[in-house]
Amino acid sequence: MENYKQLEQEFDKISKINDVIAMLNWDASVNMPHGAAIGREQEIITLTKITQDTLKSEKIASLLANAKEEVSNLNQWQQSNLIEMERNIIDAMCIQDELQLSFISATTKCELIWRAARQDDDFNKVKPYLQEVVSYTKEIAAARAVKLKCSAQDALIDKYDPGRKAGDTKKIYQILKDKIPTLIQKIIEKQRTQKILPLPYIDINTQKAICRRLAEIVGFNLNKGRMDESAHPFCGGTPYDIRITNRYAENDLISGVMGIIHEAGHGLYEQGLPEIYINQPVGRSKGMAIHESQSLFMEMQVGRSKYFCEFLSKLLRDEFKLQGVEYESENLYRLVTKVDPGFIRVDADEVTYPLHIFLRFEIEELLINDSLTLDELPAFWNSKMEEYLNIRPTSNKVGCLQDIHWYSGSFGYFPAYTNGAIIASMLMAKAKALSPSITQEMSVGNISNLNKFLDDNIRGFGSLKSTKDLIKDATGSEDIDPIIFLTYLEQKYLS
Amino acid sequence: MENYKQLEQEFDKISKINDVIAMLNWDASVNMPHGAAIGREQEIITLTKITQDTLKSEKIASLLANAKEEVSNLNQWQQSNLIEMERNIIDAMCIQDELQLSFISATTKCELIWRAARQDDDFNKVKPYLQEVVSYTKEIAAARAVKLKCSAQDALIDKYDPGRKAGDTKKIYQILKDKIPTLIQKIIEKQRTQKILPLPYIDINTQKAICRRLAEIVGFNLNKGRMDESAHPFCGGTPYDIRITNRYAENDLISGVMGIIHEAGHGLYEQGLPEIYINQPVGRSKGMAIHESQSLFMEMQVGRSKYFCEFLSKLLRDEFKLQGVEYESENLYRLVTKVDPGFIRVDADEVTYPLHIFLRFEIEELLINDSLTLDELPAFWNSKMEEYLNIRPTSNKVGCLQDIHWYSGSFGYFPAYTNGAIIASMLMAKAKALSPSITQEMSVGNISNLNKFLDDNIRGFGSLKSTKDLIKDATGSEDIDPIIFLTYLEQKYLS
Repeated sequence: MENYKQLEQEFDKISKINDVIAMLNWDASVNMPHGAAIGREQEIITLTKITQDTLKSEKIASLLANAKEEVSNLNQWQQSNLIEMERNIIDAMCIQDELQLSFISATTKCELIWRAARQDDDFNKVKPYLQEVVSYTKEIAAARAVKLKCSAQDALIDKYDPGRKAGDTKKIYQILKDKIPTLIQKIIEKQRTQKILPLPYIDINTQKAICRRLAEIVGFNLNKGRMDESAHPFCGGTPYDIRITNRYAENDLISGVMGIIHEAGHGLYEQGLPEIYINQPVGRSKGMAIHESQSLFMEMQVGRSKYFCEFLSKLLRDEFKLQGVEYESENLYRLVTKVDPGFIRVDADEVTYPLHIFLRFEIEELLINDSLTLDELPAFWNSKMEEYLNIRPTSNKVGCLQDIHWYSGSFGYFPAYTNGAIIASMLMAKAKALSPSITQEMSVGNISNLNKFLDDNIRGFGSLKSTKDLIKDATGSEDIDPIIFLTYLEQKYLS
Repeated sequence: MENYKQLEQEFDKISKINDVIAMLNWDASVNMPHGAAIGREQEIITLTKITQDTLKSEKIASLLANAKEEVSNLNQWQQSNLIEMERNIIDAMCIQDELQLSFISATTKCELIWRAARQDDDFNKVKPYLQEVVSYTKEIAAARAVKLKCSAQDALIDKYDPGRKAGDTKKIYQILKDKIPTLIQKIIEKQRTQKILPLPYIDINTQKAICRRLAEIVGFNLNKGRMDESAHPFCGGTPYDIRITNRYAENDLISGVMGIIHEAGHGLYEQGLPEIYINQPVGRSKGMAIHESQSLFMEMQVGRSKYFCEFLSKLLRDEFKLQGVEYESENLYRLVTKVDPGFIRVDADEVTYPLHIFLRFEIEELLINDSLTLDELPAFWNSKMEEYLNIRPTSNKVGCLQDIHWYSGSFGYFPAYTNGAIIASMLMAKAKALSPSITQEMSVGNISNLNKFLDDNIRGFGSLKSTKDLIKDATGSEDIDPIIFLTYLEQKYLS
């Protein structure tokens, strides 16, 4: 086991450096003054180069080859760790230093221009920079595809959802595409007659106090994490110092509340990873689809359930003295389950959300395969929105300029959102089947059994299992099952 | 110049990693949740090891040897850079990996225990840990002394004030020791008849707004820095992202105001370093004595001057509507120049402050030379306090347990405070001689000429010159001059 043990030491170092990079990125979003951006970028590039050089070193290659000979002496965790190590090494090896640097430089520039272009609603301004990012992305995807023996799109998705194939995803999405549009029509029809009282303005400090209580209630450990503000809510930091952010608007308590529950879901995943492997690849989270399943579990399955709304109503009334009729449980539930097709993905309800993803997933395939040019992108996006949601974006700002992903080089990420939503619904179905008292517990703000279920079935496994096995062992289903998701939506919104 | 250029690249990398460590340390003091301490320590050790390994590598040694052959081709900045590089390399080389690791581990543990020991006023609790730190410190000092060809105490001081000798410092301190006690008696006598009105309670948010205005007024660039809160005010971060902290108490506006002016002085030094060499040793600050001279210049020479008090009074009245008689200029000046011997160094006025330093400086020498044991330390401290300030500490909490320095391994640091105070008085004497309008400018909050003077004479030189040359070129004096400092104190407090 000598070689394996040495590999562990190398990856321990890499893991710590990656944690530092995560902290620097968190700081850049939450604290960093504007004028420090160039210095910060240089720091991150310096650290990234150290990890990349280590991964590409002959020493690592030889340790890996020798460690594979020792596999019979390794336990299950160590064997999986070796697989994850190799994934990391292949990731690094298949991209030459120069390409890596060009990619970082192109995405950094493009992301910067994108901020201005979105502000000015001027796609042409960012188009040449996006073109550069697309070119490098294709080059990287092609290199990864060879190594991973898969298609270019598979190679991109694999980065965020290990083992997931574009073809399988397409089949799942086809099932949803056949059903969701009709479902949306039915829900809108049903909700048309519902009376919803808007919530009054609530000062930001009160909202922060409410959100802090909610983070504690869902189990987020503030002794090993923080809550802050940022332009876009996210979950950053490291497993032992996880930092969730939120944004607040006086006229939108619901967004703040659901934002923090969502991010706490991400945070709980990180805080529940297996401690003894925390500085090894096998001890880290199993990709972004599983990560989104954890945040969406807390937001959609818990936070936006009628049971939790009962608790939330009591909490607002008893602890925060918010006692108008608009805070009654039924009204809160209507507010958090309102279905309303809109242009913006991040503001979408959970029923229309998948359509935003299908559109992006399909466009990514066309861009990567040279079947769509950037000149054609804006109009194509708008037509697709019309096709899927019956609304046509009035500008690129609310169309193809809205998301940071492509401009920052994150092609292949989008399916993780919808796959995560489906997995979340499967996990809740299983949890309820195992313990029917779950719903009653949610109505009094007791999430402990749900957390235990997720700890025992998802979080505690880190990257020990394949995504498929993780889902299968937790839910009993062979893989992501869109039917369970559809059933969940129908029951929640139409019954 | 090939070898020199390659050295520059290596030091560019080291500089960025050191900047990251600085940011992690800032975060640990300002943001980090308690439960993340162990992870953070591991991150910092990992990064430190990378810089240490680089500095100790054969590659660096050979580059340095070859670069020295190229010295005739180097400009003045590059030549000084080479000297600073060698200083860094020697620093690393003279301490073996194992000793370095033992020292980090001992100081981390000791600092932690010290916090509890100070809280409980129990010196015995931390004594064995401090003993370990003292032992390693002596070992390190001995190793450095051999390399630097100086005494052990010199070797410790050199780390914070390059080139400064304990013997010279002792002579300077003797001059001050002969005069300051009588001066204190005269000032106390004079101030006895002065009527001082205490300031009322002021809410923390108002104090923060006042401090933000003051930071801007003294020229601190908030586009390349931040202001935060921490248990003890400090200046951290990097030259392009300098982060100053402060603490606030409702009943002590003066502390908050002077705290931020002091830290902004540190910050302005970092923000004024030569930009093109910012990632090289020569582009960084010239040790802690010069650093303290910059903060004390802003606090003592500007902030606590009667001219600036005129401005402060107007600012509080016009912008913050604080209009009672207690905010009148004369009362503010009496508040900020009150001389009152006390136990605590960080709360001391500028006249009694040097005596706190002499005591520590002398004790350090005795500890390093085995002339004082830790068993004897508390009583010896208290006797010295009685000798110098005529007051005897009532507990170790306000005696030898008060400062973090020794417990965290920073032996040799203390002289930087008083040397900085002297240099600050010399700089102001020179600035006033060059431009008599300086005092009038301070009274309207215009610090631009003073900033220009410091930029042109101190900040902009980084580590280009020796400390002696830096002081000489800026002030005309051959070295630190205690007489100028005494004259300043006499004029300010007795005229």
